[in-house]
Amino acid sequence: MDEKTEYWYSTDRDALLKRLRRVEGQVRGIQRMVDEDEYCIDILTQISAANKALRAVALHLLEGHLGHCVADATAAGGETAEAKVKEATEAIGRLMKS
Amino acid sequence: MDEKTEYWYSTDRDALLKRLRRVEGQVRGIQRMVDEDEYCIDILTQISAANKALRAVALHLLEGHLGHCVADATAAGGETAEAKVKEATEAIGRLMKS
Amino acid sequence: MDEKTEYWYSTDRDALLKRLRRVEGQVRGIQRMVDEDEYCIDILTQISAANKALRAVALHLLEGHLGHCVADATAAGGETAEAKVKEATEAIGRLMKS
Amino acid sequence: MDEKTEYWYSTDRDALLKRLRRVEGQVRGIQRMVDEDEYCIDILTQISAANKALRAVALHLLEGHLGHCVADATAAGGETAEAKVKEATEAIGRLMKS
Repeated sequence: MDEKTEYWYSTDRDALLKRLRRVEGQVRGIQRMVDEDEYCIDILTQISAANKALRAVALHLLEGHLGHCVADATAAGGETAEAKVKEATEAIGRLMKS
Repeated sequence: MDEKTEYWYSTDRDALLKRLRRVEGQVRGIQRMVDEDEYCIDILTQISAANKALRAVALHLLEGHLGHCVADATAAGGETAEAKVKEATEAIGRLMKS
Repeated sequence: MDEKTEYWYSTDRDALLKRLRRVEGQVRGIQRMVDEDEYCIDILTQISAANKALRAVALHLLEGHLGHCVADATAAGGETAEAKVKEATEAIGRLMKS
Repeated sequence: MDEKTEYWYSTDRDALLKRLRRVEGQVRGIQRMVDEDEYCIDILTQISAANKALRAVALHLLEGHLGHCVADATAAGGETAEAKVKEATEAIGRLMKS
């Protein structure tokens, strides 16, 4: 992994992975509810909770991306900066629709 | 399971579980991306995809719930019907915000 | 309007129109902020507030629709019921993505 | 307005105002539908459309904000940069939930 770029979140990796494993656990919990004939609304409530947790991870990643990757690009200026801002805005647009 | 209510989705269970296992796989894939220092935007794109998949499962469950549980309650009428409709609308509200 | 169907919300019309006029006012307020060079984040905050208000109107309409139009159709049963439930679920899907 | 900061969107003002006036027109159109007893689903469809239009304006403002206000702050570095990125991320979070 040495020739790979190490991103800002490498110092944050364990915390990020922990949150993502919790989301994985939530999704498995939803599977169990379906398996054990739980009431639809209760399952929907857990799906909202898993969505919310994923969203929180996305916002955390976004904040770091804006403060590091986008900031570095905008400091360099020019077309790279514009492309980086556009790319981030498009990712935000996808998150809003998902 | 005989004293447990068997909901409308029991005939749909395998398909639902298959979709939820796919979401579980997507979340594990996101963990791998974080573990392997993938670019933030690519991770965000996968989070949007996992959210979208969860949303599709939620809409499927909602359609069944409206067509079975809520329909039965509204056929019976009275307070149960109102409560069931309110409950479904609140679940939709949570999904919209999540 | 006599040959027109009068929907459940006719008894609710004034309250609905009042809320929608308030949203209209919020959108005009956002125009004023743009006109008067207000800070981007403050404008974004007002856009979120207008979105939220529109969402609340949508949820109110949805609850009434489920409790009246969909309930009547599911009481009648058959294909109309299924079509009505599908139609409502698709509207919910659009709201979630918007 | 001379002591007021003139933001990046001043060159974009007319286009932004035009889009916001269109949203205002959409909201008035929804009022007319309620006034004229239109079918709930058709009204919900128009609410989704108005929400979507507002979202597009928000994303446009966000892209400009990231490329100008946040970029200037991150170029300056330090606490202002962090605060600006945090502020933008919180605005994105509000938009996602609205």
